Amino acid sequence: MLTTNPFDDDKLKEECGVFGVWGADGASSIAALGLHALQHRGQEAAGIVSHDGLSFHAHRAMGHVAGNFDQDEVIRKLSGHAAIGHVRYSTTGETALRNVQPLYAELSTGGFAVAHNGNLSNALTLRDKLIQRGSIFQSTSDTEVIIHLVATSTKPTAVDRLTEALKKVEGAYSLVCLLDDGLVACRDPLGVRPLVMGKYNDATVFASESVALDVIGARYIRDVEPGELIIVNNDGMRSFHPFEKAKARPCIFEHVYFSRPDSMVEGTSVYQTRKAIGAELAREAPVEADLVVPVPDSGVPAAIGYSQESGIPFELGIIRSHYVGRTFIQPTQDIRHLGVKLKHNANSALVEGKSIVLVDDSVVRGTTSLRLVQMMRDAGAREVHMRIASPPTRYSCFYGVNTPDRAKLLAAQMGIEGMADYIKADSLAFISLDGLYRALGDKRDAAAPQRCDACFSGDYPTTLTDRNRDKEHPEQLRLVSND
Amino acid sequence: MLTTNPFDDDKLKEECGVFGVWGADGASSIAALGLHALQHRGQEAAGIVSHDGLSFHAHRAMGHVAGNFDQDEVIRKLSGHAAIGHVRYSTTGETALRNVQPLYAELSTGGFAVAHNGNLSNALTLRDKLIQRGSIFQSTSDTEVIIHLVATSTKPTAVDRLTEALKKVEGAYSLVCLLDDGLVACRDPLGVRPLVMGKYNDATVFASESVALDVIGARYIRDVEPGELIIVNNDGMRSFHPFEKAKARPCIFEHVYFSRPDSMVEGTSVYQTRKAIGAELAREAPVEADLVVPVPDSGVPAAIGYSQESGIPFELGIIRSHYVGRTFIQPTQDIRHLGVKLKHNANSALVEGKSIVLVDDSVVRGTTSLRLVQMMRDAGAREVHMRIASPPTRYSCFYGVNTPDRAKLLAAQMGIEGMADYIKADSLAFISLDGLYRALGDKRDAAAPQRCDACFSGDYPTTLTDRNRDKEHPEQLRLVSND
Amino acid sequence: MLTTNPFDDDKLKEECGVFGVWGADGASSIAALGLHALQHRGQEAAGIVSHDGLSFHAHRAMGHVAGNFDQDEVIRKLSGHAAIGHVRYSTTGETALRNVQPLYAELSTGGFAVAHNGNLSNALTLRDKLIQRGSIFQSTSDTEVIIHLVATSTKPTAVDRLTEALKKVEGAYSLVCLLDDGLVACRDPLGVRPLVMGKYNDATVFASESVALDVIGARYIRDVEPGELIIVNNDGMRSFHPFEKAKARPCIFEHVYFSRPDSMVEGTSVYQTRKAIGAELAREAPVEADLVVPVPDSGVPAAIGYSQESGIPFELGIIRSHYVGRTFIQPTQDIRHLGVKLKHNANSALVEGKSIVLVDDSVVRGTTSLRLVQMMRDAGAREVHMRIASPPTRYSCFYGVNTPDRAKLLAAQMGIEGMADYIKADSLAFISLDGLYRALGDKRDAAAPQRCDACFSGDYPTTLTDRNRDKEHPEQLRLVSND
Amino acid sequence: MLTTNPFDDDKLKEECGVFGVWGADGASSIAALGLHALQHRGQEAAGIVSHDGLSFHAHRAMGHVAGNFDQDEVIRKLSGHAAIGHVRYSTTGETALRNVQPLYAELSTGGFAVAHNGNLSNALTLRDKLIQRGSIFQSTSDTEVIIHLVATSTKPTAVDRLTEALKKVEGAYSLVCLLDDGLVACRDPLGVRPLVMGKYNDATVFASESVALDVIGARYIRDVEPGELIIVNNDGMRSFHPFEKAKARPCIFEHVYFSRPDSMVEGTSVYQTRKAIGAELAREAPVEADLVVPVPDSGVPAAIGYSQESGIPFELGIIRSHYVGRTFIQPTQDIRHLGVKLKHNANSALVEGKSIVLVDDSVVRGTTSLRLVQMMRDAGAREVHMRIASPPTRYSCFYGVNTPDRAKLLAAQMGIEGMADYIKADSLAFISLDGLYRALGDKRDAAAPQRCDACFSGDYPTTLTDRNRDKEHPEQLRLVSND
Repeated sequence: MLTTNPFDDDKLKEECGVFGVWGADGASSIAALGLHALQHRGQEAAGIVSHDGLSFHAHRAMGHVAGNFDQDEVIRKLSGHAAIGHVRYSTTGETALRNVQPLYAELSTGGFAVAHNGNLSNALTLRDKLIQRGSIFQSTSDTEVIIHLVATSTKPTAVDRLTEALKKVEGAYSLVCLLDDGLVACRDPLGVRPLVMGKYNDATVFASESVALDVIGARYIRDVEPGELIIVNNDGMRSFHPFEKAKARPCIFEHVYFSRPDSMVEGTSVYQTRKAIGAELAREAPVEADLVVPVPDSGVPAAIGYSQESGIPFELGIIRSHYVGRTFIQPTQDIRHLGVKLKHNANSALVEGKSIVLVDDSVVRGTTSLRLVQMMRDAGAREVHMRIASPPTRYSCFYGVNTPDRAKLLAAQMGIEGMADYIKADSLAFISLDGLYRALGDKRDAAAPQRCDACFSGDYPTTLTDRNRDKEHPEQLRLVSND
Repeated sequence: MLTTNPFDDDKLKEECGVFGVWGADGASSIAALGLHALQHRGQEAAGIVSHDGLSFHAHRAMGHVAGNFDQDEVIRKLSGHAAIGHVRYSTTGETALRNVQPLYAELSTGGFAVAHNGNLSNALTLRDKLIQRGSIFQSTSDTEVIIHLVATSTKPTAVDRLTEALKKVEGAYSLVCLLDDGLVACRDPLGVRPLVMGKYNDATVFASESVALDVIGARYIRDVEPGELIIVNNDGMRSFHPFEKAKARPCIFEHVYFSRPDSMVEGTSVYQTRKAIGAELAREAPVEADLVVPVPDSGVPAAIGYSQESGIPFELGIIRSHYVGRTFIQPTQDIRHLGVKLKHNANSALVEGKSIVLVDDSVVRGTTSLRLVQMMRDAGAREVHMRIASPPTRYSCFYGVNTPDRAKLLAAQMGIEGMADYIKADSLAFISLDGLYRALGDKRDAAAPQRCDACFSGDYPTTLTDRNRDKEHPEQLRLVSND
Repeated sequence: MLTTNPFDDDKLKEECGVFGVWGADGASSIAALGLHALQHRGQEAAGIVSHDGLSFHAHRAMGHVAGNFDQDEVIRKLSGHAAIGHVRYSTTGETALRNVQPLYAELSTGGFAVAHNGNLSNALTLRDKLIQRGSIFQSTSDTEVIIHLVATSTKPTAVDRLTEALKKVEGAYSLVCLLDDGLVACRDPLGVRPLVMGKYNDATVFASESVALDVIGARYIRDVEPGELIIVNNDGMRSFHPFEKAKARPCIFEHVYFSRPDSMVEGTSVYQTRKAIGAELAREAPVEADLVVPVPDSGVPAAIGYSQESGIPFELGIIRSHYVGRTFIQPTQDIRHLGVKLKHNANSALVEGKSIVLVDDSVVRGTTSLRLVQMMRDAGAREVHMRIASPPTRYSCFYGVNTPDRAKLLAAQMGIEGMADYIKADSLAFISLDGLYRALGDKRDAAAPQRCDACFSGDYPTTLTDRNRDKEHPEQLRLVSND
Repeated sequence: MLTTNPFDDDKLKEECGVFGVWGADGASSIAALGLHALQHRGQEAAGIVSHDGLSFHAHRAMGHVAGNFDQDEVIRKLSGHAAIGHVRYSTTGETALRNVQPLYAELSTGGFAVAHNGNLSNALTLRDKLIQRGSIFQSTSDTEVIIHLVATSTKPTAVDRLTEALKKVEGAYSLVCLLDDGLVACRDPLGVRPLVMGKYNDATVFASESVALDVIGARYIRDVEPGELIIVNNDGMRSFHPFEKAKARPCIFEHVYFSRPDSMVEGTSVYQTRKAIGAELAREAPVEADLVVPVPDSGVPAAIGYSQESGIPFELGIIRSHYVGRTFIQPTQDIRHLGVKLKHNANSALVEGKSIVLVDDSVVRGTTSLRLVQMMRDAGAREVHMRIASPPTRYSCFYGVNTPDRAKLLAAQMGIEGMADYIKADSLAFISLDGLYRALGDKRDAAAPQRCDACFSGDYPTTLTDRNRDKEHPEQLRLVSND
């Protein structure tokens, strides 16, 4: 079986996107539109919980937002003026519906729904303690730990309980929570994962990326600050900073790959940043060539930057199919590289006899790079020079990004020359970590980096309590199949 | 829309059937067969949880056992030598998958799955306390209360915890529980709901009715005793009586309607009991007539008994369709009594000009009786004498049977003569409560009845703590729709 | 895999039921109800074509009427005052939707839809000729031959064309056809398959059995006569006898098994006939026994007749499950006779130690009989005497009934004593062919039987042109799979 | 309801793609891959018919190739060494499965399957005659006319019959046909629709576009010539030119929009042609501006050409979502232009304050252009100059392209200045028809154009027999709904 799944392309995967809206008629349909704009952050499942002033309504489904949340009867049931939503990518192969967010619980303080982008690095340790105490977990999601901490808190209000709960967790979280009487948005003290705030008429909107505001015509107001907790209800909006102050460490990979190019992250255009990375790369790793060819679509902005800086023409040497399926049966072994061809096809008439600069955003396991270089050669390219718009990815992420085991990260196994040999490129270059910061207008402070760049540097901004127990945790394995 | 649903026929509905097996290869497929034989006890949903010595496997589905649990890929995933299963009928209109049993929880003592037949009469009160303590409920099922009581117990073993939990609940329960290291079967101190034990080769089997043993070729051993808790594991079987001793009060309606005629309940043949009821009814309420006509299929044994005692020939004056659908659109109003005709049709050639005794097992709201009498008249019957093989149903059940509101019980609203007028029968008679006991070989002790006959007598064998709060309980209403 | 399919029970299968209505609002919903009442005549697929005065509307589906034609959106599309419908059982393993009737064609004379009960015995020969001429067949159904004969006729009107077409075919057919301007009902000259006419208000209704009139509240008028063609349109009804006159030969098996007991066939009650067969059988083959036990449900009327004639009590020694599924996985080989148990279970408490007369309607391959006798013995029966309410089935049917190959018919392979040994009964008796005619109030004329009893006698009333070419016909095999 | 369907974007739609392979193991899986690569030519439905040397196997389905033909059990049934396939877009709103190709018929010469790209301009006239003769049509597709002409031909062989049939039809067709003993590929005398031939090992492959060869690793051999009929069987390949010789008129729009940029059409690279059109457009209609912005994805090659010729930088001012759904519910009216935003979003950070050249491939109704111009202005663009890489589309296509009624073609209603006003652009220019030919390396011969450019010029290369009877043809309307 060969896959043409657009997401099976040797990329790191963002695990989630969140969305929340308070104070709008048809809140669920706004949430559905917002989640659709965040679909690239998680394609496995989606969910919305709404509140109509009296009751909560929930719908969760495996699959895309379109196809599930574009149906009249679904949206009609999700009535109310407030809604939160979530798109998710699976982290551990656990793809059951029970893990689909938003999670919901009936607490003694009322209903409580939560959608979470990020990952807690002490979830398993907390989970053990909660189970000892009598809490019953329904999912394998770390987010459920937050809910149980809220449920078992003895503080008087739901917001106090949430604050107490969050003080016990470690790791990355951007949350939107829906209560009977308000919407809560919160970002962890380091601000690892993004969260923006906007206004749509009188309604307040939160989203993982600004593009979700664009699609509904909402106005971007500002980013939720690291460590900030915002409550929106019918009395207006209040902001709190309940956590100990820390130096922010927003994820640098949002700029490189996760966020859509038309989003603003930390106030800067992702498209412009990627072009700047491409230009920086052209300066750091110039090459004589006939064409700059992007790996579509994520390599396009960096390729334009590389082309403009180098003066080498930008051309579509690889054409991407719009019709991607999951798997096809391969008739025989001599249909080489079929998987990649279903998605990408060489523009042979263009490439033949040319020396090309192939620009991609990242290399994870190297499998796609290997195939693309070969595809260019099969199409007659004279030379193939690979240029990567991020530093070598050498470390796993513990903050909500799905990374392969370190053993599978190509850059963790060999040096750049070895990698060039492996993918059979005439040359291979990555932008430097300092160069990446420069493209963002910064100078990296090696002692205290301004961002989380752990996947490149191994410099993790939090302790990693659960690090060595992930795989053998017994409780998680008791119920292994469930529909 | 007109229904021909076989279960929309003005009957009380058993809410559940349970099944458990320990020590057999292919335990899940045995459980599936057993549940199929118990399908009449609950047609809304079914579930099985298995254990393979290491892990639990669960599958739950809306609909019948056949169609869900007869599929290779489902059964293959439910691997292991032990399994429990459940069929259910919805009690409160809540038909979501989250209520389908067996319920499962990961406790600090290990995995814990439970299937429950019965109903707790203090579930809401206990639920409130548990939520105050921080327990998060996932369903509206009273069975989940048992799980949380087990989870929050501080006893060392799962069985000790279960015992402690059950001492806090009030009402009716026949349970099978699956743990990492054993199967537990338990019946409440009054033994309201049935539970039998059998052997199949070396395996031990528990089921709501003996017919589930027949279908798998298992040997009936004995009933689980009221108040008995049995643990079966690889070391054998141990029996406990952890609760305060009480006089048993098994449900009398199992004999009248719930159980299959080929089951043995409390050691007596249901078929023979129903024939005895019919004979008793012929003595208590004789009538001159040409034919004894059963309302198929549940009225057949009593009709045979009535016929044999009275000497009036038994004949199929009503033919039942095997092909029942849910609803059909009625083309025009003048298609009278369409709903009932889709299921039952008069055998006009037989009935015309005759005086008939129509025998049914019970009257709940009277709607079907009214239609059947009219159908007999439309077919040309000269006289229609209705004979009912149970006393008038005047009270709701709180022990796991779905009864309409008392206001809808015909016998709660009027006397027998009024009922005869209402259903337009030439005469109407019910067996007396004493007569029913006689047919069971007993003499009813009015001061301390030997069985639970509360639906006829109003004599409830337990306190009913939640009785007056069912409808307005606020926590249950927060999440009103969910898929 | 073990089946509990209610129709996999060693019976001959009627292949079809037809229904037609002209002149009623909501004609399709009337047709759906009528087809539901005819469901026992064909469970594989169903279809309805309606006409709204301007256009035709069609819906065909695999599966039962309920589940397909009880849905609002389906019936709403099937608008109009006239409709015909069809239920079918597959004859040759070809279960594709393309064979589901009514068939429809756009002819030069207008739209033409047809529903057919029966089977043509020269269909393949005619098909060859039509293909030579350029006709393109879409199905493997013999009914399509009729449509192509109509299409290629040069007669001026659709009815003239149909008449010309039918003069070319040989075999059995009861047809209802829907044209732009009328409904046509027609029965072959021998009247092999049944067709009745009724009135529902001003509407005219045709159906395979009178029970379909009952369910919609229509009045039975008369049988369509053998060789009669009736046209109903807005000007009223006209009857024709366009074919050469022949002596009628209606199918005798309709009385024995196919028709519902509440139907009237040829003006007599099926239930009463079956009771008369049972009584005749008691006289022809008496036995000393304790109980008469019917094989449910089809053996019940004959068992009542046997019981009343013999004075041996009628009792339910076998209980039939209402919840039949298709297949279950058998956990181990020692679950004996599981297939039959899922559908039928012994009433052991009744049967134990008794000598029983087991009454069934027919024996085809003998597999079910064998299992039922064994089931009775396993339940403790002392003696099992099998009595069959039809003569031995020794010949295949070529007129619309699905019979196994002769080689699989038990009675074609051995005598009655051999059969008794095979099914391990203490005794076995079939009603004689003369006895069967007597139960119908007739004396069989061996030279020119009054009915088609070929399955018992081998006396086929028509030539069988295609008889020896069925299996190797090459055109039918070219497209072997299609969805 | 607002749509984000990728094909609801104001484009002309190619109606079909065809594929055929002879002489390869796993022919169906090769066909599935080929059709996947042709998916852009028809997204409504797909079908494959295979032949295994003995029998034909067919599968047809609504929806995409991926999701239907990537399933093991589907491909396994489609066994054999030869297969043809088809993807289709609906032409007349008739979206029933009965119209999905390949069509198949059992003829007296054997099985005959056909897949057709194009449209016959005398199909209705021929259909009338065939129905008069007794042919029964199963679809509303013009392709069925070809099958009936073949069926009713009296020539001895299937290929002779096909040739005779094609001599009677008028219009455009590229066909692949599968017979018992060979594969036939044929292109109409004008060669309106494309068809290429390739080799894959020993197998011969035909496809609408060369990209389908690329994906399976087949080698492009040559285009099938206009008027050529090729037979491939186990004896090899033979080519015929059975039709009267005519000057070729291949469709010019294949270059502009239909074909994938990585395809070769008539031996030239589509990508290079589109770049040449963009360059020509830059010369014909230059403008002072800051950025060249393509309408993604179809406008990208022309925009690169425009940018390279003009020196104005190429930038992604519009970002296209990869996750397109069909419809979303619009919460309120003030979410402006939601439909277009779900698919396209402005890259505001880039566009703000800039003068931009917006390059698209065509304008049909103008709706999308209007929205895109507005989107650019909302994003802060100072000036928006629209440049279109094809001449104004003023005429309907009758050769297999789905064009709106002329009344809806913007360019048929108004001049270019009026159109500029309508879409609110600062300027608007289309490439000239002569310029388009120049970009293709030709000089247009106005008296006898070298290509079919009727959609721009109204110069139709064939008579249009059915032209005025399309809508009121009565036979087509008799059966209006059918599933």
